[in-house]
Amino acid sequence: MSRRVHVAYTPRELDGPMDVAIVVDVIRASTTIVTLVERGCRPLLLSATVHRARQARAAAPDLLLIGEQGALPPEGFDLGNSPVEVARAAVAGRGAALVTTNGVPAIHAAAQAGTVLVGCLRNARAVAEAAWAAAPEGGEIVIVCAGRAENPGGFGLDDAYGAGVLVGRLQGLGATTLTDAAEAARLLTVAEPDPLALFRRSAAGRNVTRLGLGDDVVFCAEVDRTTVVPRVGVDLVLLS
Amino acid sequence: MSRRVHVAYTPRELDGPMDVAIVVDVIRASTTIVTLVERGCRPLLLSATVHRARQARAAAPDLLLIGEQGALPPEGFDLGNSPVEVARAAVAGRGAALVTTNGVPAIHAAAQAGTVLVGCLRNARAVAEAAWAAAPEGGEIVIVCAGRAENPGGFGLDDAYGAGVLVGRLQGLGATTLTDAAEAARLLTVAEPDPLALFRRSAAGRNVTRLGLGDDVVFCAEVDRTTVVPRVGVDLVLLS
Repeated sequence: MSRRVHVAYTPRELDGPMDVAIVVDVIRASTTIVTLVERGCRPLLLSATVHRARQARAAAPDLLLIGEQGALPPEGFDLGNSPVEVARAAVAGRGAALVTTNGVPAIHAAAQAGTVLVGCLRNARAVAEAAWAAAPEGGEIVIVCAGRAENPGGFGLDDAYGAGVLVGRLQGLGATTLTDAAEAARLLTVAEPDPLALFRRSAAGRNVTRLGLGDDVVFCAEVDRTTVVPRVGVDLVLLS
Repeated sequence: MSRRVHVAYTPRELDGPMDVAIVVDVIRASTTIVTLVERGCRPLLLSATVHRARQARAAAPDLLLIGEQGALPPEGFDLGNSPVEVARAAVAGRGAALVTTNGVPAIHAAAQAGTVLVGCLRNARAVAEAAWAAAPEGGEIVIVCAGRAENPGGFGLDDAYGAGVLVGRLQGLGATTLTDAAEAARLLTVAEPDPLALFRRSAAGRNVTRLGLGDDVVFCAEVDRTTVVPRVGVDLVLLS
């Protein structure tokens, strides 16, 4: 029983078939998605644009509009891309369209994989187990960091760190072969065992805190709080 | 006195002007280049292709041909891309053309910077000091990892680690603002203080060792052994 494990630090690096992709945008889209599915929001449509999400609501007025542009909700949206906010909202049994700057496009970019899962720290163990089970013997699991288009090179420290946590979880499940990029991600978690301390240093964490949403950073840094594993084609529908 | 510091994990990420670029291909091109310049090899022509290097020798028969394709010297070359081999060879006062798979193309890709330096562990402190001095107050120093085209995503663990060592040296010189990518590189050196242990885990280190050139990995892992800082336009000539 073995698996190859790789980390793509931005979706632009994806360049071929993958057995399983785990998309991470820890602060905040993948944490928001995990929380929405955990709270019973279904179906969850992942919309590439604000315009497309508004079209979907025009066709289905009960649909919630959730998301951000520049980290804040676009006009007329019901909820922001805030895991703390969606955890408190009445979303059970309701459908929603989600729009975000980096995370949703990354999930679209990873759609070429045989199985596409959404991961964050809150479902770390569960998403690692689901990815392991979905990959064939000797197959490849790619952790796809959404990154942060606003950062130089698109590299996001929070996502790289989240990827490192998932690499560690996968190593706990059986024999793994790590690429150089996967080993580097793992080393981040060796250097800094406290996710919250690291997230507060990241550009995404500093930006969210500056906007008064520091509770989101704390929520995103909590590990293994749920066994929910959102899956494209099951819990999530891509709306392009 | 402050500087912004960024790490590009592959040359593909470069997307704009830079005040100063430090190109690193620790195992082995940037270590070879530093060693050649240290031993008095001048001029050192960095050739994008084997064909172009052979043309240069046809025009100047005294020119040494140095380099690799698939980690080994192409036919008719005098020396490999091996810092241990070039350190022992009679290169003082001789010109050479160097061809490598990742390092030389990365230096060509970084040529847009105002100042282009070549760094490795052996000149870590010296190249950091030269970069600091060459950047204006508030200016940007970009450490450009050659990476490894043969690796998934092109990410090279040895180069990322070397970049982290240089980030640490730059922090010792004055106030710095680190991008997310620069902070991640720095954390690699916190997680693993021993360069040689890390290099032996990297794909580049394993490949060089497999070819019987493990002495090169040891040589590349030695820190602060020289104050030589090769500079494009001074010690190095780009041959495209």
